[in-house]
Amino acid sequence: MAFPVLYVIILLIMKTCFEVIYMTNEPADLTERTLSREDKFNGRFLHVHVDEVELPNGKHSQREVADHIAGVAILALDQENRVLTVTQYRYVFSKTLLEIPAGKLEPGENPAAGALRELKEETGAVPDEFLPMGRILPAPGCYGEVLYLFLARGLHMEDAQPDEDEFLILERIPFDEMVHRIMSGEIEDSKTIAAVLKAKLLLNL
Amino acid sequence: MAFPVLYVIILLIMKTCFEVIYMTNEPADLTERTLSREDKFNGRFLHVHVDEVELPNGKHSQREVADHIAGVAILALDQENRVLTVTQYRYVFSKTLLEIPAGKLEPGENPAAGALRELKEETGAVPDEFLPMGRILPAPGCYGEVLYLFLARGLHMEDAQPDEDEFLILERIPFDEMVHRIMSGEIEDSKTIAAVLKAKLLLNL
Repeated sequence: MAFPVLYVIILLIMKTCFEVIYMTNEPADLTERTLSREDKFNGRFLHVHVDEVELPNGKHSQREVADHIAGVAILALDQENRVLTVTQYRYVFSKTLLEIPAGKLEPGENPAAGALRELKEETGAVPDEFLPMGRILPAPGCYGEVLYLFLARGLHMEDAQPDEDEFLILERIPFDEMVHRIMSGEIEDSKTIAAVLKAKLLLNL
Repeated sequence: MAFPVLYVIILLIMKTCFEVIYMTNEPADLTERTLSREDKFNGRFLHVHVDEVELPNGKHSQREVADHIAGVAILALDQENRVLTVTQYRYVFSKTLLEIPAGKLEPGENPAAGALRELKEETGAVPDEFLPMGRILPAPGCYGEVLYLFLARGLHMEDAQPDEDEFLILERIPFDEMVHRIMSGEIEDSKTIAAVLKAKLLLNL
């Protein structure tokens, strides 16, 4: 009788030890589960919904989400390491912003193909060299947009074909000056900051 | 008779020349004027409206705007140049993200005060040194959020007071490793990328 009882006690001790080890090695599960969804707005680019979610502690909360079509942004450098920039009116902030060329992906479009298309449309540039520089999530708290960054070099200039009703001022700005304008706070666009500073490290510029 | 005619012709030629010079020196006015606004959604954090606008060419178009309360993000470095990070579940992307501490400003709150408050609440850190590192506009095409970046050093650790229902995993990650994780594409959060890479240049790390 003593042996099986001892056996069970040892097993229980071992189980407890393993559970503690298991729990400390396991990353905490922070998943929020969707309980229900209410669509609030379906526009051409923006889709807004409010979800009731279950938090890790079992409580309920609400999440407001603005989904947006994925996009691309391209840091294009000419032979003198000047950056091709576009200045355009950003209605949301009632002012013009200096940015790198960017745009929305078309449905089902591959990010690299979309980036080459946008670069050509906005600036006329067609690159020999084209490298991915990762993705950015501009505002992951509430905003569902994903932006794919690319680096383009070895540029051949063809005709730009901006969208009708797209008003862009094209410039070529020396790379160092772009870095300076970022560090001084003049350039505030997150994709432009991320792409220029990533390229600075990548190319040792 | 001949003199006044010549005079008028010369004046007309001069006027034309001046207009051309004036036009090429003047930046093009790319302003889009609001014609009407329709509110689509008013949530706790998100406010969505669709505006009818007049473009620079006189045509009409629509702008979809998701406005969001302004926020702050803090790159806090300890004495060994480790970055205080928070990992949290980002419902919009159904996964956890590694980010620097950040949060929304309260109504009327000064950005620096809000940043000190958020840093203390999320991590318990109170800095001796606190510097602004500019603003970022995460997604200026459709999303109205502005984020103020700060650099914090000389940290004293007190008690963290995360919001109820805020589940955060705190870590301290060496600065070089943060840069590596950004360059490898592992870190995708735009404010974390901008703050780390700006600080790298600013502090020559």
